[in-house]
Amino acid sequence: MAELQYASNKSFVLHGIDHTVFEEKAVREPGPHEVVVQVKKTGICGSDVHYLAHGRIGDFLVESPMVLGHESAGIIFKVGSKVTNLKPGDRVALEPGQACRTCDSCKRGVYQQCADMVFAATPPYDGTLGRYYTLSSDIAYLLPDNLDLEDGALMEPLSVATHALDSIAQLKVNDTIAIFGAGPVGLLLMAVAKAFGAKRIIAVDINQARLDFAKSYAATDIYLSPSKLSPQESNIDYSKRVADEMKAKFGLQERGANSVDVVVDASGAETCIQIGLYLAKHGGTFVQVGMGSANVTIPITYVLVKELKVLGSFRYGPGNYPLSIDLVAQGKVNLKPLITHRFAFDDALVAFKTTRAGKSEDGVAVIKAIINGPE
Amino acid sequence: MAELQYASNKSFVLHGIDHTVFEEKAVREPGPHEVVVQVKKTGICGSDVHYLAHGRIGDFLVESPMVLGHESAGIIFKVGSKVTNLKPGDRVALEPGQACRTCDSCKRGVYQQCADMVFAATPPYDGTLGRYYTLSSDIAYLLPDNLDLEDGALMEPLSVATHALDSIAQLKVNDTIAIFGAGPVGLLLMAVAKAFGAKRIIAVDINQARLDFAKSYAATDIYLSPSKLSPQESNIDYSKRVADEMKAKFGLQERGANSVDVVVDASGAETCIQIGLYLAKHGGTFVQVGMGSANVTIPITYVLVKELKVLGSFRYGPGNYPLSIDLVAQGKVNLKPLITHRFAFDDALVAFKTTRAGKSEDGVAVIKAIINGPE
Amino acid sequence: MAELQYASNKSFVLHGIDHTVFEEKAVREPGPHEVVVQVKKTGICGSDVHYLAHGRIGDFLVESPMVLGHESAGIIFKVGSKVTNLKPGDRVALEPGQACRTCDSCKRGVYQQCADMVFAATPPYDGTLGRYYTLSSDIAYLLPDNLDLEDGALMEPLSVATHALDSIAQLKVNDTIAIFGAGPVGLLLMAVAKAFGAKRIIAVDINQARLDFAKSYAATDIYLSPSKLSPQESNIDYSKRVADEMKAKFGLQERGANSVDVVVDASGAETCIQIGLYLAKHGGTFVQVGMGSANVTIPITYVLVKELKVLGSFRYGPGNYPLSIDLVAQGKVNLKPLITHRFAFDDALVAFKTTRAGKSEDGVAVIKAIINGPE
Amino acid sequence: MAELQYASNKSFVLHGIDHTVFEEKAVREPGPHEVVVQVKKTGICGSDVHYLAHGRIGDFLVESPMVLGHESAGIIFKVGSKVTNLKPGDRVALEPGQACRTCDSCKRGVYQQCADMVFAATPPYDGTLGRYYTLSSDIAYLLPDNLDLEDGALMEPLSVATHALDSIAQLKVNDTIAIFGAGPVGLLLMAVAKAFGAKRIIAVDINQARLDFAKSYAATDIYLSPSKLSPQESNIDYSKRVADEMKAKFGLQERGANSVDVVVDASGAETCIQIGLYLAKHGGTFVQVGMGSANVTIPITYVLVKELKVLGSFRYGPGNYPLSIDLVAQGKVNLKPLITHRFAFDDALVAFKTTRAGKSEDGVAVIKAIINGPE
Repeated sequence: MAELQYASNKSFVLHGIDHTVFEEKAVREPGPHEVVVQVKKTGICGSDVHYLAHGRIGDFLVESPMVLGHESAGIIFKVGSKVTNLKPGDRVALEPGQACRTCDSCKRGVYQQCADMVFAATPPYDGTLGRYYTLSSDIAYLLPDNLDLEDGALMEPLSVATHALDSIAQLKVNDTIAIFGAGPVGLLLMAVAKAFGAKRIIAVDINQARLDFAKSYAATDIYLSPSKLSPQESNIDYSKRVADEMKAKFGLQERGANSVDVVVDASGAETCIQIGLYLAKHGGTFVQVGMGSANVTIPITYVLVKELKVLGSFRYGPGNYPLSIDLVAQGKVNLKPLITHRFAFDDALVAFKTTRAGKSEDGVAVIKAIINGPE
Repeated sequence: MAELQYASNKSFVLHGIDHTVFEEKAVREPGPHEVVVQVKKTGICGSDVHYLAHGRIGDFLVESPMVLGHESAGIIFKVGSKVTNLKPGDRVALEPGQACRTCDSCKRGVYQQCADMVFAATPPYDGTLGRYYTLSSDIAYLLPDNLDLEDGALMEPLSVATHALDSIAQLKVNDTIAIFGAGPVGLLLMAVAKAFGAKRIIAVDINQARLDFAKSYAATDIYLSPSKLSPQESNIDYSKRVADEMKAKFGLQERGANSVDVVVDASGAETCIQIGLYLAKHGGTFVQVGMGSANVTIPITYVLVKELKVLGSFRYGPGNYPLSIDLVAQGKVNLKPLITHRFAFDDALVAFKTTRAGKSEDGVAVIKAIINGPE
Repeated sequence: MAELQYASNKSFVLHGIDHTVFEEKAVREPGPHEVVVQVKKTGICGSDVHYLAHGRIGDFLVESPMVLGHESAGIIFKVGSKVTNLKPGDRVALEPGQACRTCDSCKRGVYQQCADMVFAATPPYDGTLGRYYTLSSDIAYLLPDNLDLEDGALMEPLSVATHALDSIAQLKVNDTIAIFGAGPVGLLLMAVAKAFGAKRIIAVDINQARLDFAKSYAATDIYLSPSKLSPQESNIDYSKRVADEMKAKFGLQERGANSVDVVVDASGAETCIQIGLYLAKHGGTFVQVGMGSANVTIPITYVLVKELKVLGSFRYGPGNYPLSIDLVAQGKVNLKPLITHRFAFDDALVAFKTTRAGKSEDGVAVIKAIINGPE
Repeated sequence: MAELQYASNKSFVLHGIDHTVFEEKAVREPGPHEVVVQVKKTGICGSDVHYLAHGRIGDFLVESPMVLGHESAGIIFKVGSKVTNLKPGDRVALEPGQACRTCDSCKRGVYQQCADMVFAATPPYDGTLGRYYTLSSDIAYLLPDNLDLEDGALMEPLSVATHALDSIAQLKVNDTIAIFGAGPVGLLLMAVAKAFGAKRIIAVDINQARLDFAKSYAATDIYLSPSKLSPQESNIDYSKRVADEMKAKFGLQERGANSVDVVVDASGAETCIQIGLYLAKHGGTFVQVGMGSANVTIPITYVLVKELKVLGSFRYGPGNYPLSIDLVAQGKVNLKPLITHRFAFDDALVAFKTTRAGKSEDGVAVIKAIINGPE
């Protein structure tokens, strides 16, 4: 068989704050159990934009040039000598994190907690915004025929949602759930909650247009967070008041069938977290998905007296990608309405700027922007 | 059979802040499934003292005179017509809360979350500091021969500990646990953790004498929280620093065998909660048992990234009393070292004042004071 | 208010094998927390028929006359003095078992395991086939407006299914489930599995017509169990062979996404149980719902090596009735196709005989027959 | 550094039924993450003896020569280029199964269910009875100073016990457990149950001497299974009778504090499994650990009505080896009394024959025989 020839591996590289360059990068040859994927579609995530704007996220500091992008799908270009589950030409969604497989976290089935995770576009590891990306064959997931490559790219944020609701919250059919934040992850959480058979899905945001979209997409109820009564009203007082107003408006009780079983915060905002804790039923579950303020004040006495379960949800772990793919393949989740913008690879910087601005020049709000892979 | 005659039911009644009166109270006749107990031993709890000092705990306001006391054991005086598990003369520990048995919480096995709980010495319900107390026969627990009535009185705080570690934290053999606060509940948590086969029990407090006692009692390691570096050091910076110092001192890691599996806060102090959240391993469990500040600042990003489980633990529920009794009966928990003071019923006010002061006039620190029932 | 007058309480009473009588029975006056219901619709269950045909089920022996019937709905006629959740005229589904509320099982949230359960039409307790039935107000469930009384009567068998799949199997969205037996309970299990978002629902039976109905109702796949190869083929050999054939036909694997996560046996037949154990994936769950042979041979080595979870499911417990009602109210389960026959109260015996025969004189197969309450 | 020279790798090789040969085998060079261990102590397991006697275990057929042995400890001889957790000279216990790390089972934390497991002395994979054994560094566990190499060799059967009780049965402090079979695994189950704080540990066997040892070692109660009443008594009748006798003798009830929470069968005998299912409390757990009859008859109606959890336990999985090591290191489990016989490497065949006979020529019953590694 003739040796496969790589084309140019032009990549979109972050050099520093607001400083990106298109650069040629070497392609990493696949190991025996690895594959090389031609990246075709890449979604832009808030974290990508954050690195561009700030050069860091928390302790993760961009110290040397790094290829951006981690929400990708593509086509298998080359497979390692021992790969049997995939072949060139296969369409795949890429799970962008490679865990070590040998530590206690990996062995116990929580590889998202692996200390040696190699994660695309998390410093110092390169991301997927090039022509080629090399990864283990078991984290390149074959797409069913009725999913296209854009669906494939969105498996990444969708898996954040399935991880939060399936692995962490353990949402059950007929549960009532409140979701704070109607951005891309919040919307995906709503879609997954609907697919899981939630009885009631209450979307909360500060933007009416987002809420209107949420209602049309997956929420059963929407709630626009009000303004503070006065500058003097503390966050905690505000949050208690809003939670009480929500309970009254939606007929929510403290326990039993008409109470909020699960709250998920996808906003990272202190008041949302507080409202959520006040809103959750006795014995209810609160899941933190959104990254925002590093430290927030919470009504700990309510956590204690109501015996809440306050749970962190980080990225995704075992089984989340397959579940995400199945939910879309079965028509239980529809990703198409979320893709509002598409860009050519050479316009990657425009794509980032548009996502950062929240809308394109024609005024269309961004939910999810997709960059087409280099042609 | 001759009708039983009740003696005087002199009771220790709270009328208002720092205002108590010994009063005669009517004895409630037992229903068919109830028993009347002659109260013989009652421990004093921080909540009792708090009602005496402040007239309220959070939303629970003492609005009419209320008999104090809820940590009690005694002797069955009279049984209802359908009671078969107990007979007059039996020695019993009293579980002081009677749930409704019919609500969703009760039916699902979390009766501590019952909205209609009738709890001794929680307004508006009378407590146990009288000669007689009437309660359902299924929450009067027969004491084995090798437990005395003082042990019986301490089943109440011990059940707070078994609830936190068995029902909520689900502490496993060989876990490492850190317990903040070495007061009565913290010490009982340590004793239960030891009985559960914890590998390492790290006690944290701001009082060296308490820690020394903890070490002699059940802790494997003790840690004296340091002072702030300066008045400018924020709580969150202080807490992060202390957690790092603890990790270094005790060789604690972020994951795996030498990490902190479970943290329990029995202090209610903001810095303890923060240190605990920094200390817990990835995927670890944090349980809030101590009532203190209503609102506290927490490092929510750590909760998220480490996928912590932050759980509230309130009172006790199904199975906790029987487990507590068994642990003492089998010699796995020894309650005797905790009883530092004993008072006659007529000295109840002195008992409360001594507990509030934290030590008796002879300088002996109070861990647990017991009031003998009226003779 | 004028005192309510009871009408005749004519009841359908089992006196012995194949010996029933319509008799007047006294109405039990409601206690403070009880209600009296006018029974309007009652489904016939296999267990009712079994008592009629055999006078016993296992250790439960009909030793004195017993009113039959336990799948009922009706209208509140009278309420006890402390009932607040219901009022005369309300339409309710009846949960026919009253647990003791005070034993270990009841308190721990598994009241279906209560040793002192009072269960309608289980000896020695009278059932619901009379004009009036008195029960606790918390187990008379208000029907939403979009459910009729026939739906209400079927809440009982539907709750057998929600108990098995929600409380016991803990079926998750996207699971693949195989259900053995396409009778009323099997069909309800399929409907609930569909409502829970199962990916694939494989119905197995020995009757093609039942399977065709199952396919039209809720199953995604159906399988007609074949005959034995010869009289010499043992049950265990037969079952292994059939399981292998099913795996081949449906492309089922031993582990992972295309394997059988959950098996439920609603047949009670030894070969079904065996096939199910061979079919379940490594780490999979098998739930026994159907009562049949008292003792069956199972391939225990497969249970061990595959680390199966073999679970019993008995009746229903906390939360099952509310969930059942919600699933129907939200349109996730449709009960109407299951009701094949309806009878007047005075024709109760015909109703039983028809159910026992499996079809009516016109040849229509019985799935569920309903007896209208006395008019 | 001078290149390490391997000495002779003489190995104990099974060629066929009752046909073993000492042969020189090539040493497999370690990969980057692997180590070569000099095997020093190897316990003999029933499965080793079974291969010698029958040439197969179920579907596992010895088709080509295979080195025996899988319960081993030794000293690190050589480490791969990337190994950081171990160095030559370290004393380690060997976990003899290497899972694939990439399949669904491995990722979900149940690697014992991996379809591609490479397990020592399970055909076609060589075992540990040679001078050298090469394996991944993460499954060679460093022994603490207070464990010797014999303890290390017994980590394998001990991990079968910790897996069964920790990962599968989830035995809790104060549980009552019945263990059928007082052979090596049964005894280790008892020791682990004691370490976990079981309230009562009831050992059942047909051999009084074994039971006497069990009582001296870890059991709180022992029970000698009686003979059948007559040849006509069926297994199921016998088992029901024995279970009833056990309940009477030990005061065991069907539910609550004085009932059997967990049953573990380490015998593989049909009657033991039956007795265990009759004995387990309502809602109790039954775990199958012992391999014996492929098919057994069980009282399935009891499984259903009591809502038992019947669980298979296979080998061991994540965390079991570290827990086993810790339990011995902390003195909670003492392995020394179990080692009854020791043999030189050249006497390996005698060791096997002695184990198979159940006692040595001097009449001492074998619990566990150890073969010293080649000197």
